[in-house]
Amino acid sequence: MTPIVKAGPPRAMLALMSQPDPRAPTRTLSTSDFRVPPEDRYFEDYLPGAVYEYGYLTVTEAEILEFARRFDPQPIHVDPEFAAAGPFGGLIASGWHTASMMMRLFADHYLSRVASLASPGIDELRWPAPVRPGDQLRLRTTIMEARLSRSKPDRGLVRTQGELLDSGDRTVLSLLAMNLLGCREPGSR
Amino acid sequence: MTPIVKAGPPRAMLALMSQPDPRAPTRTLSTSDFRVPPEDRYFEDYLPGAVYEYGYLTVTEAEILEFARRFDPQPIHVDPEFAAAGPFGGLIASGWHTASMMMRLFADHYLSRVASLASPGIDELRWPAPVRPGDQLRLRTTIMEARLSRSKPDRGLVRTQGELLDSGDRTVLSLLAMNLLGCREPGSR
Repeated sequence: MTPIVKAGPPRAMLALMSQPDPRAPTRTLSTSDFRVPPEDRYFEDYLPGAVYEYGYLTVTEAEILEFARRFDPQPIHVDPEFAAAGPFGGLIASGWHTASMMMRLFADHYLSRVASLASPGIDELRWPAPVRPGDQLRLRTTIMEARLSRSKPDRGLVRTQGELLDSGDRTVLSLLAMNLLGCREPGSR
Repeated sequence: MTPIVKAGPPRAMLALMSQPDPRAPTRTLSTSDFRVPPEDRYFEDYLPGAVYEYGYLTVTEAEILEFARRFDPQPIHVDPEFAAAGPFGGLIASGWHTASMMMRLFADHYLSRVASLASPGIDELRWPAPVRPGDQLRLRTTIMEARLSRSKPDRGLVRTQGELLDSGDRTVLSLLAMNLLGCREPGSR
């Protein structure tokens, strides 16, 4: 493992990292979105059937290499020359890198910033198509189910289908996420 | 998003990152392991019922903060003060960071380096306990199933239960992984 924070003084590294990102910030892409921002979003705001989209994130070859060298050093992710001769005809991102990019959009736009309690887990994580350097990705969320907890009526479980799509509308990642969210008005639903 | 590779010249960054890791390399911890190294490991070597352990990986607070600032900036992962007053009494790693650490052990010790074709996906990804700064983690793999492909007899599907355990033997992550692996001798099994 080659963690970046070991490469130099952690404090200096973190200072560098907190510089503003020169890329455009991500935003809601769909015409509809939650009626409230993440800072005022509770279990009651997750309505089954709602579909939203957020983006875009792009990924560079340097980022793909850096993530894979730390966490998933398979040749298809860390060796451009090997990858060029492989089944995808070039370097592709680690599936865990792709999942982590999905999470960034999920955390910034979909999850509540005040009522998110925990994630019990993820089901059916799939990578149907590769992510390549330069790909522009967006997240589509579909609320599949929202049900109040029986044992703890101040919270509920939201099940979400997440899909990460590239600019050719190919799904590069899909999953079913579970999230526990606190209620705005416990007992009202 | 605050990708590290944007914080300075990518080339210089990558040079820094390729410095040797001062920590001890990871190794097989169980008394048994595959009979062949990853460089000579094929579908035939994945025997249902086999259980192996690999480790250790440790994680620092700086690494937890850095990963979360890039990919999962929820307060419980990026704000030590907020986290100290929260349900876990301190900072915990993003579940995707934990999954990525699992992958590092999986790629270094469990997966074939010559016959790994792809991962169709992951099921039942769970985070039963938090990962905190300083935790020492090990991977336990249990081969659940290994079956030859009907349509392509030169490969087979291996299903593995992966568990990441901390030094108190708590499971911090579990999953069911699917991996397609090429055969050493197509058609012989």
